[in-house]
Amino acid sequence: MKDTSLPAGRRNFIKTAATFAGGMAGFSLLSAPVLAGNGPNTQSPVNPATIAALPVDKDINIIGPKEGYSPQIGTLVSMMAWIRPQIVNSVKNMTTEQLDFLLDDKANTIGALLYHLAATDAFYHEHTFKGVAWGKFDPAVDEKFRVAMELGEEGRKKIKGNTVDFYLTLLQETRENTLTEFKKRDDKWFMAVDEKWYWGPTNNYCKWFHVCEHESHHLGQIALLRSRLPGAKFEG
Amino acid sequence: MKDTSLPAGRRNFIKTAATFAGGMAGFSLLSAPVLAGNGPNTQSPVNPATIAALPVDKDINIIGPKEGYSPQIGTLVSMMAWIRPQIVNSVKNMTTEQLDFLLDDKANTIGALLYHLAATDAFYHEHTFKGVAWGKFDPAVDEKFRVAMELGEEGRKKIKGNTVDFYLTLLQETRENTLTEFKKRDDKWFMAVDEKWYWGPTNNYCKWFHVCEHESHHLGQIALLRSRLPGAKFEG
Repeated sequence: MKDTSLPAGRRNFIKTAATFAGGMAGFSLLSAPVLAGNGPNTQSPVNPATIAALPVDKDINIIGPKEGYSPQIGTLVSMMAWIRPQIVNSVKNMTTEQLDFLLDDKANTIGALLYHLAATDAFYHEHTFKGVAWGKFDPAVDEKFRVAMELGEEGRKKIKGNTVDFYLTLLQETRENTLTEFKKRDDKWFMAVDEKWYWGPTNNYCKWFHVCEHESHHLGQIALLRSRLPGAKFEG
Repeated sequence: MKDTSLPAGRRNFIKTAATFAGGMAGFSLLSAPVLAGNGPNTQSPVNPATIAALPVDKDINIIGPKEGYSPQIGTLVSMMAWIRPQIVNSVKNMTTEQLDFLLDDKANTIGALLYHLAATDAFYHEHTFKGVAWGKFDPAVDEKFRVAMELGEEGRKKIKGNTVDFYLTLLQETRENTLTEFKKRDDKWFMAVDEKWYWGPTNNYCKWFHVCEHESHHLGQIALLRSRLPGAKFEG
C-alpha cells in the first residue's frame, strides 16, 4: 500500500538553539516552505536578536497546563505558543517588498496581516484585562493599532515600507503583554462570562481562543500569499 | 474618539432554530459575509436536513469542559464546535461551480479544502484512536481521503463536480466519528505523549489541537477565495 505523505504542520521540523522551535506553516500544499535565503531584493534581513529572544520550548508539542499559569490559561498559552513560531518562520526572511506584495486591489499584504495579528492581542488586552469597552480604547492604543485592526483600503494605503523586524517586534511585545497579564489571573476569571458580548454570552476563554485561532486563520492566508510572491518557486 | 469597528468573528450573529448557531467567517475584511442567496447559478441548494441536523448550542461561546467528555477533551471539543459553524456558514449556499472555482493554476478549490478538512479528521482518527501508523491507513480509508489530504495537482484534477451537501456530509460524518471516540477516552489518554512523532514528542492533545487550528487555517483561505468568486460583491 502506498504511503500517504507525512503529516504536515511541521514538515521540516527545525529545532536549533539559534532558531525558533517550530516549523513550517500550515497543513496543505497551499502552505509553502519558508523562502530560502532572502529572495531577489535583500533588504533589512531579520535581526537575529528578535528571533533568538523568543524561548525555545522543548515541550512545544505538549499541549496542556503550563507552569506559571492556572491550568486552563496555561493550556491556551501552550496553544498560542504552538502557532506563533509558524507565523514567525513563514516571514522571518522576507524583504519589505515581499511584505508589501499585493495579490490584487482587494487583498491585504503579508505585512498588514502581521500588524493585524499584533493589533488583535492589543485590543483584546485592553478589553479583557483593563475592562475597556470594545471601540472605546485609549487614544494612544487606538492610534497605534486601529488601521491594522480594520485593514481594508486604509490598511493598503498606510501599512507599507516596514521591515520584518518591525512586525515581529510588535508581535512579540503584544504577546508578552498578554502573557504577563495571564500570569496574574486564574481559571475563574478565564471562565467568567460576558453576557453582553456581540456573539452572545461569551467567556474570556472564548475571546482569547478566538485571538489564538484567528492567528491560524491569517496564517492560512499568509501561506497562500507567500506562494504568489514574484519569484516564488513552490507549490501553492 | 472614533469607535473602532465591532469585533468580527461573528459579525452578524444569527441564531435561529432552523439555522446553525454561528456566524460569519474570520476576523478581518478578508473574510466576506456569507453570500446572499445562491449566486448566479443556482444548482443543488443545500439540503436543509444537513444543516438542521447539527446541534444549535446556546453555550457555543463558552469555551471549556463539556458534559459527556473528560475536562480537557471537552474543552477541545468546545473549540472545534466554535470553529465548525463558521466553515459551514461560509459555504452552505455555494453552487458546484463556486466550490470548483480555481483562483489560479496553483490554487485549491473551496470544495477541495472542505474535503481536506474531513480527511484530516479521518486520518487523525485512524492514527490516534486506532493506533495506525501515519501513512499505513486502511485501504478503504486511504482510497476515500488520500487525494483530499494531499491536494495539489491530483486534487485539482479529481475533486470537482460535487455539491455542497457532499462536502458538508463528509465533514459532519467524520466529526461525529471523532466525537464518538472522544467520549470513550479520558484526559490521561489526551495528555499521553508520542515520543516518536515527526514534530518531536507530541501529545494527543497537540495532534487534535492541530486538527482544530488547521480548520481555521483553511477557513482563512476559503474566505480569501470566496471574495474572488466571479460575481462576488464584497471586500476581500
